[in-house]
Amino acid sequence: MPGALATHIAEVSLIDQHVHGCWLAHRDRRQFENGLNEANTEPLADFDTAFDSQLGFAVRAHCAPLLGLPKHAEPDDYWNRRGQVGELELARLFLRAAKVTDWLVDTGYADGVADVAQLADVSAGRAHEVVRLEQVAEQAAATPGEYASAFEEILHRRAAGAVGTKSILAYRGGFVGDLSEPSAAQVAEAASRWRDNGGTRLSDRVLLRFGLHQALRVGKPLQFHVGFGDRDCDLRKANPLYLLDFLRQSGDTPIVLLHCYPYEREAGYLAQAFNNVYVDGGLSINYLGARAAPFIGRLLELAPFRKIVYSSDGFGPPELHFLGSALWRNGIHRVLSGFVAEDDWSEADAIRVVDLIAHANAARIYRLDAVERV
Amino acid sequence: MPGALATHIAEVSLIDQHVHGCWLAHRDRRQFENGLNEANTEPLADFDTAFDSQLGFAVRAHCAPLLGLPKHAEPDDYWNRRGQVGELELARLFLRAAKVTDWLVDTGYADGVADVAQLADVSAGRAHEVVRLEQVAEQAAATPGEYASAFEEILHRRAAGAVGTKSILAYRGGFVGDLSEPSAAQVAEAASRWRDNGGTRLSDRVLLRFGLHQALRVGKPLQFHVGFGDRDCDLRKANPLYLLDFLRQSGDTPIVLLHCYPYEREAGYLAQAFNNVYVDGGLSINYLGARAAPFIGRLLELAPFRKIVYSSDGFGPPELHFLGSALWRNGIHRVLSGFVAEDDWSEADAIRVVDLIAHANAARIYRLDAVERV
Amino acid sequence: MPGALATHIAEVSLIDQHVHGCWLAHRDRRQFENGLNEANTEPLADFDTAFDSQLGFAVRAHCAPLLGLPKHAEPDDYWNRRGQVGELELARLFLRAAKVTDWLVDTGYADGVADVAQLADVSAGRAHEVVRLEQVAEQAAATPGEYASAFEEILHRRAAGAVGTKSILAYRGGFVGDLSEPSAAQVAEAASRWRDNGGTRLSDRVLLRFGLHQALRVGKPLQFHVGFGDRDCDLRKANPLYLLDFLRQSGDTPIVLLHCYPYEREAGYLAQAFNNVYVDGGLSINYLGARAAPFIGRLLELAPFRKIVYSSDGFGPPELHFLGSALWRNGIHRVLSGFVAEDDWSEADAIRVVDLIAHANAARIYRLDAVERV
Repeated sequence: MPGALATHIAEVSLIDQHVHGCWLAHRDRRQFENGLNEANTEPLADFDTAFDSQLGFAVRAHCAPLLGLPKHAEPDDYWNRRGQVGELELARLFLRAAKVTDWLVDTGYADGVADVAQLADVSAGRAHEVVRLEQVAEQAAATPGEYASAFEEILHRRAAGAVGTKSILAYRGGFVGDLSEPSAAQVAEAASRWRDNGGTRLSDRVLLRFGLHQALRVGKPLQFHVGFGDRDCDLRKANPLYLLDFLRQSGDTPIVLLHCYPYEREAGYLAQAFNNVYVDGGLSINYLGARAAPFIGRLLELAPFRKIVYSSDGFGPPELHFLGSALWRNGIHRVLSGFVAEDDWSEADAIRVVDLIAHANAARIYRLDAVERV
Repeated sequence: MPGALATHIAEVSLIDQHVHGCWLAHRDRRQFENGLNEANTEPLADFDTAFDSQLGFAVRAHCAPLLGLPKHAEPDDYWNRRGQVGELELARLFLRAAKVTDWLVDTGYADGVADVAQLADVSAGRAHEVVRLEQVAEQAAATPGEYASAFEEILHRRAAGAVGTKSILAYRGGFVGDLSEPSAAQVAEAASRWRDNGGTRLSDRVLLRFGLHQALRVGKPLQFHVGFGDRDCDLRKANPLYLLDFLRQSGDTPIVLLHCYPYEREAGYLAQAFNNVYVDGGLSINYLGARAAPFIGRLLELAPFRKIVYSSDGFGPPELHFLGSALWRNGIHRVLSGFVAEDDWSEADAIRVVDLIAHANAARIYRLDAVERV
Repeated sequence: MPGALATHIAEVSLIDQHVHGCWLAHRDRRQFENGLNEANTEPLADFDTAFDSQLGFAVRAHCAPLLGLPKHAEPDDYWNRRGQVGELELARLFLRAAKVTDWLVDTGYADGVADVAQLADVSAGRAHEVVRLEQVAEQAAATPGEYASAFEEILHRRAAGAVGTKSILAYRGGFVGDLSEPSAAQVAEAASRWRDNGGTRLSDRVLLRFGLHQALRVGKPLQFHVGFGDRDCDLRKANPLYLLDFLRQSGDTPIVLLHCYPYEREAGYLAQAFNNVYVDGGLSINYLGARAAPFIGRLLELAPFRKIVYSSDGFGPPELHFLGSALWRNGIHRVLSGFVAEDDWSEADAIRVVDLIAHANAARIYRLDAVERV
């Protein structure tokens, strides 16, 4: 018979504080398998299959039963069955099974996936926008007149209806180097140069820095992609320790370090060192599958318990939006039940920490009680 | 019934080879809670409490029973009870419960805490000084005449009554860059510049390097703060791998890498690579709380077993001087009893390795049999 | 009664895809103990013994029974017993007990150890050469005429009878910096300079880069020493993330990242990010001893299961050629039986993944079915 901790973890509602849209229409098997590989930017090799990975095994273990299949169903059986269900129904099924009340949706890259309203609809939950700063920059580049004021105007307008901002600086040169606020003249010059070059895919460091400091002024939580991502991101330059000087200048604006693998210890340290820094396991949990529990344990090292938040980073296959929740529940149960079994923690404390990570910390920093339902 | 290994670990006497003074007088709750957060240099945020961290939970789990409270006592109850006991009595209680025979005390920063003699007194143990090099530098800057000879004279005088030296280079720019010995002319010039600027808080690289090489000549063990500390230390530049060239030049003087998190694997490698390099878990063990055991396991990877030492790095709340011991005993028991249960190690070997880490290695390198009792 | 997974792991045949020769003649105890320390390049200190390390304990635990001694035999007893057996008989005994069908032998450094044919003979298995690029360079430097064409000619001739190539760039300045293909003029100039300086121990970056790109053209798997090695290698510069740009240029040639500790997570990420990148635990497994299982677990994180291979990296004492196999079997059993016990993986999947790592992946990339038996 499961104890109070196990029952609580199985039932606790989540705020998924960093997620993207899910597919609403059918894809072929190659697209599905590439959707289960984060790091590779090319089609998988002929000899390979995304089903032979921790994520692939986790899909078969945790998602198959929701489709009426046995755990560990064969890949072909799984693929055929999900085709019979249909993508929209899969989205409803998996997103609702995640027991997520609120989805915080990064709308910066959304080709072919549900938008914020659609995500609320299929999940029967609430959905809120997170504004991607590099997208705001592209919008400002396309706006006539002064770049800086256009950026500010667009950011403030979009942020007013959003719960936070997000930076993919990790994908645009990484965190190495000066991240201080540039002067107005530097911004104007850089913007002019970028506009002359087409104003797409921002990689100019001056404008990236400008965007970050504008986001600090907005004051809503600023999310950073940290660590693990696809190979366009130089993982070495996505070590959050390179953010130290920026964090020293970041004031009270909450900074949320997303994903973090393999720098979760460094991220946890920063969450202890700065009152405004938070840490999230995001993407990493899905990709670690059966190895997610030790990772979740590492997130519970130096980071104070009021500084840890949950996300799935689901994008594309709706399995991912559910699997993040399933693996997090499994993993945190293994970690915390171990602490309780050793009498290092009381069960009551463990339950309280579950609530903090599952929803209470995110509700506090994103002020979700104060925002409109989408 | 506990086995021979468990009994041995519970009873073995420790040499705490890197520690600071404990408080002897009352502090308020804010000071106490900040004393349980290492990394942050500001007051904790209003929404936060240091009790909601691994260290806070560990205090409630392991220290509360010594105050007559149940394990996992509520924070308010714990705080009220420790106030009733009084700080001096807390110091006696916790330090004696640590079963430490010898405390090696870094006297470089000692505002408001017990000095070496007081620590010996409250703990009913022996206490020995470790001389902080950057403090010697400040003393030399304040001494008339040539800086280099003043530094040498002060260092040799102080080191004669001490068991080792300590560098906080990690806090003064980190380990990146040239750490070779500067020339006499470079030292004189740098000292003159520093004295002109007031001669406080040494950050000049030439003088820092000079101090390290003087410490090598003294020949007593030289401790380095490595890894985890407060945010004045750039954790990225406190990676011990940056010490490689310095270690290649360090001869026979024992070099002790303190704390090390999250670079404990790198530190263990260096302890295998150099006959004179040692590794310590220090500060990290207290801050990891229920997660200390896996860290202690990682210390037992590449480092030869005669190259690992124990410390608590306690500073301030006397709970920390005890908790280091309690968590180390718990953690090493979990790790080694696992090795024995798998029949990877014999129990006799495990007991022997406990003795090496608990006291034998430190007694050997600090020559504690040869030093005077303070 | 052991289950199907345990039985399968105990019996599965291995391809040891990176190994060196073993000793065939007697050495003294000092040589033997230095043979059990990888990182140190000096004789062990008087106070130390290689038996007091994870590797030393693992030798006593796993090798002693093959010599008719009890597990955890005392070091002196072990040393005496192995002397009675004699080195050639030890080689036969240990190499055959490893259940390895194919040894892929790095012949780049082979002083005093078995050559490829001898290794096949003592092991009663197949042995294949892996050509070390830096050795080819030295041969080219010693060949009259143009360096580049001499290098190409020697490499193609040697590679025709070999299964792969190997680079020790990690020992020749590490991975930091430009690794693109140099121009013919740069190669000629650098070769001239190197020949003038004697043409030994290649450390010229231009020629090292030239060799790598020639190896890519050969198309057979290219192995890189990564991470843990002796202290001539700057471990910080042996982080595989520095290889990112090179990997982006590496086309279809399989790249095998060897050893990897403490960068196994980074290496696994690269194995997910690039269709042609593979990860191996090699040397690290032996040196981790009782701590090998968690390392093997970390190898099973981001790397797809068709991208992980086995090796022992044995060199010298034939214990190492066996111990790699014994520790890998123990470790993968602990990791995978844990996944199965939690019902995260099916037992059938676990058995299939064992086969992939033990031999199927290596057989595929080295095309072992197509090569001649040596």
